Amino acid sequence: MLGGACTYISLSASFFTPVSIVGVVGQDFAEDDVNLLVSKGIDLEGMERVPGKTFFWSGVYSQDMNERTTLQTDLNVFADFAPKLPPSYRGKPYLFLGNIQPALQKNVRGQMNGVRLVGGDTMNYWISDFRPQLLETIREWDFLLINDSEARMLSGQSNLKQAAATIMAMGPKTVIIKRGEYGALLFFKDRHGATRWFAAPGYLLEEVFDPTGAGDCFAGGFMGYLASRDVDLCDPGADHRELHRAVIYGSVMGSFCCEKFGVERFRSLTRDEIDARFQEFQDATEF
Amino acid sequence: MLGGACTYISLSASFFTPVSIVGVVGQDFAEDDVNLLVSKGIDLEGMERVPGKTFFWSGVYSQDMNERTTLQTDLNVFADFAPKLPPSYRGKPYLFLGNIQPALQKNVRGQMNGVRLVGGDTMNYWISDFRPQLLETIREWDFLLINDSEARMLSGQSNLKQAAATIMAMGPKTVIIKRGEYGALLFFKDRHGATRWFAAPGYLLEEVFDPTGAGDCFAGGFMGYLASRDVDLCDPGADHRELHRAVIYGSVMGSFCCEKFGVERFRSLTRDEIDARFQEFQDATEF
Repeated sequence: MLGGACTYISLSASFFTPVSIVGVVGQDFAEDDVNLLVSKGIDLEGMERVPGKTFFWSGVYSQDMNERTTLQTDLNVFADFAPKLPPSYRGKPYLFLGNIQPALQKNVRGQMNGVRLVGGDTMNYWISDFRPQLLETIREWDFLLINDSEARMLSGQSNLKQAAATIMAMGPKTVIIKRGEYGALLFFKDRHGATRWFAAPGYLLEEVFDPTGAGDCFAGGFMGYLASRDVDLCDPGADHRELHRAVIYGSVMGSFCCEKFGVERFRSLTRDEIDARFQEFQDATEF
Repeated sequence: MLGGACTYISLSASFFTPVSIVGVVGQDFAEDDVNLLVSKGIDLEGMERVPGKTFFWSGVYSQDMNERTTLQTDLNVFADFAPKLPPSYRGKPYLFLGNIQPALQKNVRGQMNGVRLVGGDTMNYWISDFRPQLLETIREWDFLLINDSEARMLSGQSNLKQAAATIMAMGPKTVIIKRGEYGALLFFKDRHGATRWFAAPGYLLEEVFDPTGAGDCFAGGFMGYLASRDVDLCDPGADHRELHRAVIYGSVMGSFCCEKFGVERFRSLTRDEIDARFQEFQDATEF
């Protein structure tokens, strides 16, 4: 079925802001799937369709849904992907770089003119086998979104506060560490240059149906909210609670993602449901 | 060195409210340790001193401090302990029952006259080997404090929301689930009978020096704060944010506990430091 980081990120962000995507699919990419993206107002000008088959992944989750084993990964058309931004994309103010080879992320960053806020995520494979390229790439990022085990791997620190400080010294002045069912931690510099932290709990679902894509939906909600609010992380006068809210909206979108199989939940999801859950987070954290 | 649930709970609670303890020590119990408790205003009338040696435990932690292995447990004088409340204790409004055989907890509860709020904790051993007694005991409690794996064991549910609902049906209308470094979850009934939840993050320490007693210090902060505010969980008009604050104060006290070996941190700790950390929790969770 339809999947992939770009799909989840863009569907999630589309509830907050207009989204334009860059990616590649094969000739087998279903018209129904194109229609779903179009129905959310997602700009597909940067989506290449080339001869061959679309990227394919399958996996199986552990009983408690906290671990997964990959069954099959076929790169297919993704193997030779060299992202090219349409001219209409190059002046956009917000750029999120999905998990892909760091040199390609850097290349896309280089195609943008005057981007205001850029960030992205990565994974264990790039951290271990492409470390120099990854470090060169994230040096130019405003934020890095990463899960806890990868933050430890990248920084060489087991303590997450120390891990975040080490990563901030690599470039990104804002670090978001995802902890799966336990929520997310945000680290950033306040206007006085001091490091501050914010913690969002994981949303308590009665049943986690399918966690695939939850981290990407977090990314989409986080970035989509910041874009919708015109937030500039480099502005020393910025309200840091906008960053907090972005983390909460990320958590909200990740939680909806888990409620149904694949992208199904996003077919019926409404902004009212999103805001009601944001309010539930408020009630569940204020004291 | 000085340790034990009663020690940690009472030291922690003493920063919020007058505390009277019930327990047993041997003839080897150090005068310095008595003095520490007395210096915090803790009433020792219910502390029995009997011939023999004091309870002793030692253990070793894993590298990441999240697991521990017991090296030695000597029950000593604790083996024959039958708690008897001094008459001056029986009319007190708040009762916290530390981790001990459920029948003894029930017996202590039965010695109280008109207690307003009663709760306590338990452990895997009582859940697996003394289940009927434990169920009979907690049926009379207002709240149960328990860690996540024990909540799953007691309820037979792996999902924590479902686990909490199952435990609430066993008696305690308020359930606090401790998740170690990930913080704590609170479940309670609001004035309309609906179940609500609250999540407190774990405090981010740069270094966890010794987590021994952190859960007990959480209990002391939680109960101590409720007592200091005269909270009645059965009052339908009660402000549920007092419960939220009690969970945060519990988290604050647990975090201080980890900063030094054993009970050391409590020798110098001040209420100002406690309130400053409470404020840090506020800053790190509000959005």
